[in-house]
Amino acid sequence: MNYGSYLKLDQLLECQDLESLKQNGKAAHDETLFIIIHQTYELWFKQILHELKAVKSEFSKERLPDESLGKVCHYLKRVTEIQKLLIDQMNIIETMTPLDFLEFRDLLVPSSGFQSVQFKLIESHLGMRLEDRTHMEKVFFESRLSKEQQELILKVEKEKSLFELIQAWLERMPFSDFQEWNFWEVYEEKVSLMLKEDENIINSKSQLGDEIKRIELANLAQTKKNFDSLMDAAAYNQLKTGKIVKLSQKALLNALFIELYRDWPVMSLPHQLVQLLIEVDEYFTTWRYRHALMVQRILGTKIGTGGSSGHDYLKKTTESNRVFNDLFHLSSFLIPKHHIPELPSDLKQSLSFNYDSKL
Amino acid sequence: MNYGSYLKLDQLLECQDLESLKQNGKAAHDETLFIIIHQTYELWFKQILHELKAVKSEFSKERLPDESLGKVCHYLKRVTEIQKLLIDQMNIIETMTPLDFLEFRDLLVPSSGFQSVQFKLIESHLGMRLEDRTHMEKVFFESRLSKEQQELILKVEKEKSLFELIQAWLERMPFSDFQEWNFWEVYEEKVSLMLKEDENIINSKSQLGDEIKRIELANLAQTKKNFDSLMDAAAYNQLKTGKIVKLSQKALLNALFIELYRDWPVMSLPHQLVQLLIEVDEYFTTWRYRHALMVQRILGTKIGTGGSSGHDYLKKTTESNRVFNDLFHLSSFLIPKHHIPELPSDLKQSLSFNYDSKL
Amino acid sequence: MNYGSYLKLDQLLECQDLESLKQNGKAAHDETLFIIIHQTYELWFKQILHELKAVKSEFSKERLPDESLGKVCHYLKRVTEIQKLLIDQMNIIETMTPLDFLEFRDLLVPSSGFQSVQFKLIESHLGMRLEDRTHMEKVFFESRLSKEQQELILKVEKEKSLFELIQAWLERMPFSDFQEWNFWEVYEEKVSLMLKEDENIINSKSQLGDEIKRIELANLAQTKKNFDSLMDAAAYNQLKTGKIVKLSQKALLNALFIELYRDWPVMSLPHQLVQLLIEVDEYFTTWRYRHALMVQRILGTKIGTGGSSGHDYLKKTTESNRVFNDLFHLSSFLIPKHHIPELPSDLKQSLSFNYDSKL
Amino acid sequence: MNYGSYLKLDQLLECQDLESLKQNGKAAHDETLFIIIHQTYELWFKQILHELKAVKSEFSKERLPDESLGKVCHYLKRVTEIQKLLIDQMNIIETMTPLDFLEFRDLLVPSSGFQSVQFKLIESHLGMRLEDRTHMEKVFFESRLSKEQQELILKVEKEKSLFELIQAWLERMPFSDFQEWNFWEVYEEKVSLMLKEDENIINSKSQLGDEIKRIELANLAQTKKNFDSLMDAAAYNQLKTGKIVKLSQKALLNALFIELYRDWPVMSLPHQLVQLLIEVDEYFTTWRYRHALMVQRILGTKIGTGGSSGHDYLKKTTESNRVFNDLFHLSSFLIPKHHIPELPSDLKQSLSFNYDSKL
Repeated sequence: MNYGSYLKLDQLLECQDLESLKQNGKAAHDETLFIIIHQTYELWFKQILHELKAVKSEFSKERLPDESLGKVCHYLKRVTEIQKLLIDQMNIIETMTPLDFLEFRDLLVPSSGFQSVQFKLIESHLGMRLEDRTHMEKVFFESRLSKEQQELILKVEKEKSLFELIQAWLERMPFSDFQEWNFWEVYEEKVSLMLKEDENIINSKSQLGDEIKRIELANLAQTKKNFDSLMDAAAYNQLKTGKIVKLSQKALLNALFIELYRDWPVMSLPHQLVQLLIEVDEYFTTWRYRHALMVQRILGTKIGTGGSSGHDYLKKTTESNRVFNDLFHLSSFLIPKHHIPELPSDLKQSLSFNYDSKL
Repeated sequence: MNYGSYLKLDQLLECQDLESLKQNGKAAHDETLFIIIHQTYELWFKQILHELKAVKSEFSKERLPDESLGKVCHYLKRVTEIQKLLIDQMNIIETMTPLDFLEFRDLLVPSSGFQSVQFKLIESHLGMRLEDRTHMEKVFFESRLSKEQQELILKVEKEKSLFELIQAWLERMPFSDFQEWNFWEVYEEKVSLMLKEDENIINSKSQLGDEIKRIELANLAQTKKNFDSLMDAAAYNQLKTGKIVKLSQKALLNALFIELYRDWPVMSLPHQLVQLLIEVDEYFTTWRYRHALMVQRILGTKIGTGGSSGHDYLKKTTESNRVFNDLFHLSSFLIPKHHIPELPSDLKQSLSFNYDSKL
Repeated sequence: MNYGSYLKLDQLLECQDLESLKQNGKAAHDETLFIIIHQTYELWFKQILHELKAVKSEFSKERLPDESLGKVCHYLKRVTEIQKLLIDQMNIIETMTPLDFLEFRDLLVPSSGFQSVQFKLIESHLGMRLEDRTHMEKVFFESRLSKEQQELILKVEKEKSLFELIQAWLERMPFSDFQEWNFWEVYEEKVSLMLKEDENIINSKSQLGDEIKRIELANLAQTKKNFDSLMDAAAYNQLKTGKIVKLSQKALLNALFIELYRDWPVMSLPHQLVQLLIEVDEYFTTWRYRHALMVQRILGTKIGTGGSSGHDYLKKTTESNRVFNDLFHLSSFLIPKHHIPELPSDLKQSLSFNYDSKL
Repeated sequence: MNYGSYLKLDQLLECQDLESLKQNGKAAHDETLFIIIHQTYELWFKQILHELKAVKSEFSKERLPDESLGKVCHYLKRVTEIQKLLIDQMNIIETMTPLDFLEFRDLLVPSSGFQSVQFKLIESHLGMRLEDRTHMEKVFFESRLSKEQQELILKVEKEKSLFELIQAWLERMPFSDFQEWNFWEVYEEKVSLMLKEDENIINSKSQLGDEIKRIELANLAQTKKNFDSLMDAAAYNQLKTGKIVKLSQKALLNALFIELYRDWPVMSLPHQLVQLLIEVDEYFTTWRYRHALMVQRILGTKIGTGGSSGHDYLKKTTESNRVFNDLFHLSSFLIPKHHIPELPSDLKQSLSFNYDSKL
């Protein structure tokens, strides 16, 4: 056993075959970079899949073991560190100029980054479904992936996604039962109070000018409407049907509860988890944005190797492929600390640690 | 003279007055961060203005001295380094949670980040004009800035902007006169060739499917149309009138020439300059995007301190406030190296160094 | 109230007085950058002091409230985010060339970065004491700071430092009393086992060669000796007297316990805290290293504005000014997961949450 | 041709064989990360080698073509972008805790990171020679690399290294012949003047205290001695024999000339090249430092998989493996802009562009 044999370097470092050399008999200098950067992306995708599967496996247990939440946060934190690297890697590919890329672009047609099965699998594990994808993605799915590749992805779609597992975990959170005390009623009053204050602010500030006032009051009315829907089962379901929200009402309310009481010891890890899910979404969005930009920088409106003008296609998926958007939007419903309802003492007790904490 | 007196630390470190303390008698822990991060932003804006003014001053000379181009690139490189920091600084403000911000948000109304005069001045020096701004920005300009502040900005708008100075510099580039040799004719043939090849690629690849083919051929037709307009004075002016492009045709063609022959010694600094201008634009776009996201993360759809739902407003200016967009889009018109026309020998001579280069 | 008045921009943006202008009548272009970057450093130092004081205030309470640990980790996380920015800021000052700096260096003599009182205060709050500083630092302390500045720092040295507060918190950790079960005895056996295995590995691998074997066995003997000292009160105190370690034996053992059982819910925040303290140390070390390097890059071995060759002086404090070194070195005593002793069930109970966790 | 076949993904994604699975029948979760991160490092090493070979190939030409310098800077810039990524990648491996690593460390013995032949080759191409390596590195070289691997490295050592090629390029720089005008004499006067001023500063500042004065005067005397050696062939050769400097006197003086006149158009690319070489060195130093730190964080003083306590070994090579140290230290000999000697007009002419520059 040595370093090289352990890492299978002989095999690994033989995977870089230049098409320019094969087809033109003359290596294009930058094709090596083009291959290697894509290969490192694929290796990192494999690592992300490894972590996501481990996270899903924890949440698939009937009852989440005590030490699981820490582990899950640890794995997702690693995913975000990898995502940051994937974004930074764009700086390297951006050292390839349009002129240099055009030296071998034609030779790669009709290969396309869309054919990265691992990236599709990551999205599927998170919770993307074929029906949620853009029209172009659906067309590509059918025309550019092999039958085996399509089946591989559809198989994962049939499993519970991380989105569904998280939703189930949020729904079964034990604190949502407040018994006789009606937490949400108290909370609703506080939110009404806050929104009323916001209205006063808008109305009383003469500097804003009439037009801004009108716009802001309309925005406020919308926030109020969203909030009312959050509290009303029927209205909420309409939002769900209209695909405005994805999470169930119960799950979203429990997530909101976590965010409101995040400073309680028991909420520390759940809060971290919620934030990490938002970050995973966020970093993929940033990655898609940087990717689209890089393609634009190198190709302009010219077609890419997949025979499509990559930039447009990529731009469309930048925002739409988010999975945990509802968690991201929770901040609209957070209220100032001094407005947060005081909890009944037995609930407080269960949010604390078990030992006599002098820690 | 000592460190503290030189940096006026007594004065500087007294500039952090908490409204929470003043109005509520109790400091909100995070208000210190809120003030300090904005103050560091303003200090960096001052530095960026300092560099931009120096850059403009060089280009305002009737004839650019030989050592100026290196200096200008050096200053703009520094601007981009500062911009990267401004973007990274978002990581710090994002440690402020919505709950913590709401503790003092109301106390700051109706202050608004829009009132950062220095940031508006930066945009004006670059080339933004009031008439190009979004509707909301115009409303804010009139209602939220003082008369003095408005005049300060309008005064800069009356000066030549960096955009105009760069345009003039590009227009007077000495290489654009090719005498009897018609460079652009040769180049046009090459581009036609490349676009023809692209068309063949799209048509010949049966895997693409009819729909993708149709879309791609439409894209290609558009690229071809853009290219034709670039070459035709009348068509180009229509684009200008329609605000599709901002630079003059002559300036844009000369910039394209720089990008095509970037490997020639004399083109090294001009090429760097073009790239730096694109980067300055790009980093401000990224900064606006991160800023909008941060506001969304902290406020959701709630109103900000300026009495407006910041996120929407910010999102709209993210892309629209670019100045050197035409340079960014040049990549559409670059062609593979082996297609680039060979230059006549006397032109080659003037693109080389003066000394007998064995360097 | 508006943006400018809230941030006291009039006052803030007047703090940049160029000595080159004052003394030479001609502004040195880069002096603006030199002033502004130092001012942003000082603003961030003020913010770090604000957070450190808040952290110390929590630990100064007789009994740490349940929600404190989360808060403290949040503040320290923010400190590390600021530190990362301080390090990245070096990229900006590195755009100043030696030639440009020498234009105004002489005018600043004898100001010196050592005179940053806030930075000294940060170090004092963390736990640095004058007696622990390098010889040069002591000389500078007496000769370059005013009496008031010296007293300010010595006053903080008389308070309990964060180091001492953390030490006390670690010492009173409730889990260190294992009653009849002797945890450390079991643990010691496991470590002996692990070190024995390491010895076997070294001895059995013929590829290592005799010399490497000799060196490695000596290293191993040293690790074993350190470990024995950790377990033996008398030996440990010798290490303390010799300033090899700083934390008390009890505190260090409890920190080790936290790191071994970090996956238990109750240990999640304590573990985060230990890691954050290590990171705060680490980032200051990196900052000092980058600072020394930057000074070297700009001045070489020439003297700085403080009349001293900054690089040498800075290099010496790079590693020596760490405070939580003992925590960093804990990794030597960690053992593979399958070797970690199983805890008695009542202890397990107290390391769990209070509610019937189905979370 | 498709994405997967082009990138040989089947082969690439099969290279991750867990020893934990093979030897223990149970996968250690973090071993996947351990393998993948090392494989991405090796892929990037391959890319760096590709760029370094291309750079060397340009400098191996008898006469450097006009467009070569831009190309070479472009390749080296890419190398530094990759190096930055290699450093950032440490953030990912640092998510592996000591406990997790110890689960599979024993299974990898006696593999060692030292056995990365590609990394050794990078160092050899840059200019490291076996005789310059630390004692431990030499021992490892003989005991841990196969005969073929040793020969591969020694073969590269026999080629001209980048260091030697750069030295030759610097030596043949055409501007070093100043004919009747003795540039270095004028320059020497200016440096003497500057050092004299430094001496005055040290002597006249009573605040410094006697001890600091003594130390600083000694430092100054050393700087002066270094400078005198730089100007005197015999003294310089003594420095070379003593391995204090590596570059020839002629090469170093010419590099100094480039740095002094960096603002002249012709010097723009040579100056960039000098800076890039310093950066390449610098980033590898930082990488080694972060690597040593990471090993320390995960293993403490325990032995690594290669049977050696990696941290110590790594720390020793952190600084010693620099190649272009002499260029880094040039800043000691730079002088304020207003002291830089005015060049004779014919020399000025050859430092300018050929065309009538109105650019």
